[in-house]
Amino acid sequence: MCGIVGYIGDKQAQDVLIEGLSRLEYRGYDSAGIATIENNVIRVEKKKGRLKNLEDVLAKEALTGRTGIGHTRWATHGVPSDENAHPHYSVNKEIAVVHNGIIENYMVLKEELKAQGHVFVSETDTEVIAHLINENYTGDIVETVQKVMKKLKGSYALGILCAKEPEKIVAVRKDSPLIVGLGDGENFIASDIPAILNFTREVYLLDNGEIAVLTKDDIQILNINGEAIKKEIFVVDWNPGAAEKGGYDHFMMKEMVEQPKAMMEALLSRCCENSESFGELKLNAAMMENINRIQIVACGTAFHAGMVGKYYFEKFARISVETEAASEYRYKNPIVDENTLLIVISQSGETADTLAAIRLAKECGAWVLAVTNVVGSSIAREADDVIYTNAGPEIAVASTKAYVTQIGCMMLLAAYMGRLNGKLKEADSTRIFRNLMMTPGLIEKVLDTKETIKAFADKNYRINDLFYIGRGLDLYTCMEGSLKLKEISYIHSESYAAGELKHGPLALIEEGTIVIAVCTQENVFEKMLSNIKEVKARGAHVLAIVQEAHRDIASEVDEVWVIPEMDDDITAIPTIVYLQLLAYYLAVARGCDVDKPKNLAKSVTVE
Amino acid sequence: MCGIVGYIGDKQAQDVLIEGLSRLEYRGYDSAGIATIENNVIRVEKKKGRLKNLEDVLAKEALTGRTGIGHTRWATHGVPSDENAHPHYSVNKEIAVVHNGIIENYMVLKEELKAQGHVFVSETDTEVIAHLINENYTGDIVETVQKVMKKLKGSYALGILCAKEPEKIVAVRKDSPLIVGLGDGENFIASDIPAILNFTREVYLLDNGEIAVLTKDDIQILNINGEAIKKEIFVVDWNPGAAEKGGYDHFMMKEMVEQPKAMMEALLSRCCENSESFGELKLNAAMMENINRIQIVACGTAFHAGMVGKYYFEKFARISVETEAASEYRYKNPIVDENTLLIVISQSGETADTLAAIRLAKECGAWVLAVTNVVGSSIAREADDVIYTNAGPEIAVASTKAYVTQIGCMMLLAAYMGRLNGKLKEADSTRIFRNLMMTPGLIEKVLDTKETIKAFADKNYRINDLFYIGRGLDLYTCMEGSLKLKEISYIHSESYAAGELKHGPLALIEEGTIVIAVCTQENVFEKMLSNIKEVKARGAHVLAIVQEAHRDIASEVDEVWVIPEMDDDITAIPTIVYLQLLAYYLAVARGCDVDKPKNLAKSVTVE
Repeated sequence: MCGIVGYIGDKQAQDVLIEGLSRLEYRGYDSAGIATIENNVIRVEKKKGRLKNLEDVLAKEALTGRTGIGHTRWATHGVPSDENAHPHYSVNKEIAVVHNGIIENYMVLKEELKAQGHVFVSETDTEVIAHLINENYTGDIVETVQKVMKKLKGSYALGILCAKEPEKIVAVRKDSPLIVGLGDGENFIASDIPAILNFTREVYLLDNGEIAVLTKDDIQILNINGEAIKKEIFVVDWNPGAAEKGGYDHFMMKEMVEQPKAMMEALLSRCCENSESFGELKLNAAMMENINRIQIVACGTAFHAGMVGKYYFEKFARISVETEAASEYRYKNPIVDENTLLIVISQSGETADTLAAIRLAKECGAWVLAVTNVVGSSIAREADDVIYTNAGPEIAVASTKAYVTQIGCMMLLAAYMGRLNGKLKEADSTRIFRNLMMTPGLIEKVLDTKETIKAFADKNYRINDLFYIGRGLDLYTCMEGSLKLKEISYIHSESYAAGELKHGPLALIEEGTIVIAVCTQENVFEKMLSNIKEVKARGAHVLAIVQEAHRDIASEVDEVWVIPEMDDDITAIPTIVYLQLLAYYLAVARGCDVDKPKNLAKSVTVE
Repeated sequence: MCGIVGYIGDKQAQDVLIEGLSRLEYRGYDSAGIATIENNVIRVEKKKGRLKNLEDVLAKEALTGRTGIGHTRWATHGVPSDENAHPHYSVNKEIAVVHNGIIENYMVLKEELKAQGHVFVSETDTEVIAHLINENYTGDIVETVQKVMKKLKGSYALGILCAKEPEKIVAVRKDSPLIVGLGDGENFIASDIPAILNFTREVYLLDNGEIAVLTKDDIQILNINGEAIKKEIFVVDWNPGAAEKGGYDHFMMKEMVEQPKAMMEALLSRCCENSESFGELKLNAAMMENINRIQIVACGTAFHAGMVGKYYFEKFARISVETEAASEYRYKNPIVDENTLLIVISQSGETADTLAAIRLAKECGAWVLAVTNVVGSSIAREADDVIYTNAGPEIAVASTKAYVTQIGCMMLLAAYMGRLNGKLKEADSTRIFRNLMMTPGLIEKVLDTKETIKAFADKNYRINDLFYIGRGLDLYTCMEGSLKLKEISYIHSESYAAGELKHGPLALIEEGTIVIAVCTQENVFEKMLSNIKEVKARGAHVLAIVQEAHRDIASEVDEVWVIPEMDDDITAIPTIVYLQLLAYYLAVARGCDVDKPKNLAKSVTVE
């Protein structure tokens, strides 16, 4: 969350910065701002709200200059407002800063700076950085930044302008992502690749504690002591169109539609004679013998993929797995040692809590395997092993194609572990693999029913509450479906283990309440029917999702959505597509901004 | 859920039945009904809704007779209505039945009976039992019932009247609770002890598959083959006032106020020279050495006590624990064997899913330790070891004093295990025990703030949604607080790990949304402050619960409730009392029937 961008070259910086910010808006849209340097003067323009507001102001009076930095904000300290928007200035306007992260000791620093006479105009933690650089300025901005970094606690990616050294941008990172783009007579910084993909495909991936000093024709990378570091150039292999909407109204729809292809990409590289194979893993059978504990740690949607993963690990490999939210795991003194395998899941590979969990577990000697979508991300680099989901860039805040590929990878991995430890028979492993290979086609089938789902949404979008119930594997699909709906439609939805309903939540059911009953698991189908009767007896309007063979549930419920007949283990994949589409059409019917939901941002790089 | 009662003696049965049903209404209140026999004629009166509706009808025209059965319903099959109310008749009106449980093969039986010419008047599963007994009647009702039991699948406690044998009540149980009360020239059946506590304290606790045949002067207990069984008399040691409201408006308030005493009772029997002791346990250090897996299984509020238990086990004994909802555990082919310790928690000791989990685990060789409040309950009898919470009878549907005693027992048990396996130092064990001994006084302190909480509720009761956030131990308090609120006030509340907020739920926060931030854990206090800033930045109205030392959080939030300074491990106990009181006063302000919430019932004896 929060996106930063910077440009130095021969173009007007404003144009490049605005283009970059438009690609980073998924990281936050509480405010946007830019700063440029011209004739040793820094000028700042910033506005609360979407980037559009800033563009309107700049259309009236442009900020000229060929060097600049920009920012799109997801508010942590202080409400969204013009004052709290970045860039932040020092009092003398000689220093301007954009920041992604949280300065944890900002209160202490702010009191010190106030005592030294600095006057603050915002409620942000970021503003202390501008004042602190100003206060410590030695005549050399790079040296000054090194000094200031030693005083800052917390996480930060920074872009810094100094009026007295107008031919430079200084950038640093610690626990927040930052890349440097290499151009021809121009250079860039950005929080993420899409921001500069239209200008260059060659980047440096900055590591923690590194400082980049950009001029028009040169890039120097230094460590915190000012020593030069040699970096390798990373060449981005994305199709330039990958980060465009490609004719769809929203990235989310485009990404839902891409799910069959994404799934195929995730599976194909692990396809080897009708069985799964993980040539990329260093973790082997001998190492697995010493593993006596598996933990899966993730946040949000990836956490739900982790719950599904637990289900597969326990079923295929008969290994107990503990799945936990990263923000809980990292602060609870978890039971973890050199016989622990920690699996982390993160689309962006930059999730702050997940990254912290990796570091904690590695300190205790655990082996860390990351499942992520972004090559070269912090999580990919810090883990011992990486499985890439190969879903392609995901821009919409609500994750869709990343989720189904995460599930696919977890299923493959669980089967692989089951083969390693001998708990899964060869034939079952083959069956699992063949079933998985059918999922792209199964997703297509659900995507084909779009109009039905849209019609349901158009009829029912005025609801305030919605409940999802399921058992076993279906429960995790309910959890993810409910999160999707909350994220983009702001409907207060909740998911329950169907058997827990009568221990409390049933009190919320009244005449007309919509209950979505996911019933794709044969072994609990009859039990789900009993639970459906319980909510029907309280007046609920029930929508059931079932496999083809149970289409006749129609006589018991108000609506039925059908998935084709399939193995019960893979229903989680096509079923979630129904719930993604439902969330999407309900959000659209309610007039919500699907790709940029209120209060949220993608790639949660702060705690 | 569903309560049944029966009387045979010299009194007018109607009076005893109504008195008994009034004590059982916590088990369901969708309808009530009674049947009596007089001059070989059975008459039935039954009404949808509360018992009061039935009483109004009977006030106009009483059902005379000195033998009878009664029922209060929690609907499973068929909506609440006069027709679906129990007792159910055979077509010739010679058989009447009351039933608690679910007949799983009722559809098949119903089709057969229809083919034989039986006409059904209700949608219930129960009605088939009446027709089936009628169809199979041999001239001997006891023999007939044995025959019919062999055809029934599912769970049932039954009370049966037969017009041709008017001097008898036949009662049977399988997987639903049923007791028989012994009087002087009169006898009783009931789902639970409070129903007959005003008439007798001597009872038989029926086991599965047992049949009781009651006459005025005699009780015979038979097995399914008609062989006599010798039962021991169980003498109830409850104070007769224990199941009365004692001057409070609601049982829930009485039970909240009783929490300090309940806690003391739970602790005192395990008090031994400043340390915990579990003289009642067969599980010893040698047996513990073979345990390599601990699972905690429970439902609803007890599930939350199980989450807290997991926290204590991992912290004090450094043993990984998996806590799972019983309805999920029983159907997932759990990993369980002779080296597994299964801990189950159930206030009533009759929770159907939990009981099923015990049976499954025992079949796999696991050792089962039950934590329950009801002596002689099914769960207490089927487990290998029992820890009684000693909270005294809990009548309100929303559990309060049972929960705090469950937490107390889990904490003691975790410390005990930590001492057994050497992971907990003697001094820490003593510290834990002394801290626990302070909890009754700490609960008192929170109870003393009642008026503050009531004032908050009176000001805010019109809300539709409410959110609880916390980290670590506080998260489980949030989960339980949210459930309490849902159960009795019908406000859609939800709890989140505070670190997960920005992965989705934050989208639901808007101007004025009430967020309750539980911040009693020092190690995550600063992180909670950051999360509070995030929701404040989106306009939330924040109520924080903190320990005394953090009272100055008042400058950051809208309201503060303070608990005294204490060890972080025991904050879960006083803090939940705040959230119980909040739920109570919000429900009262909204005009809800606190003790008998919509759609719910206590003691969930069906799946």
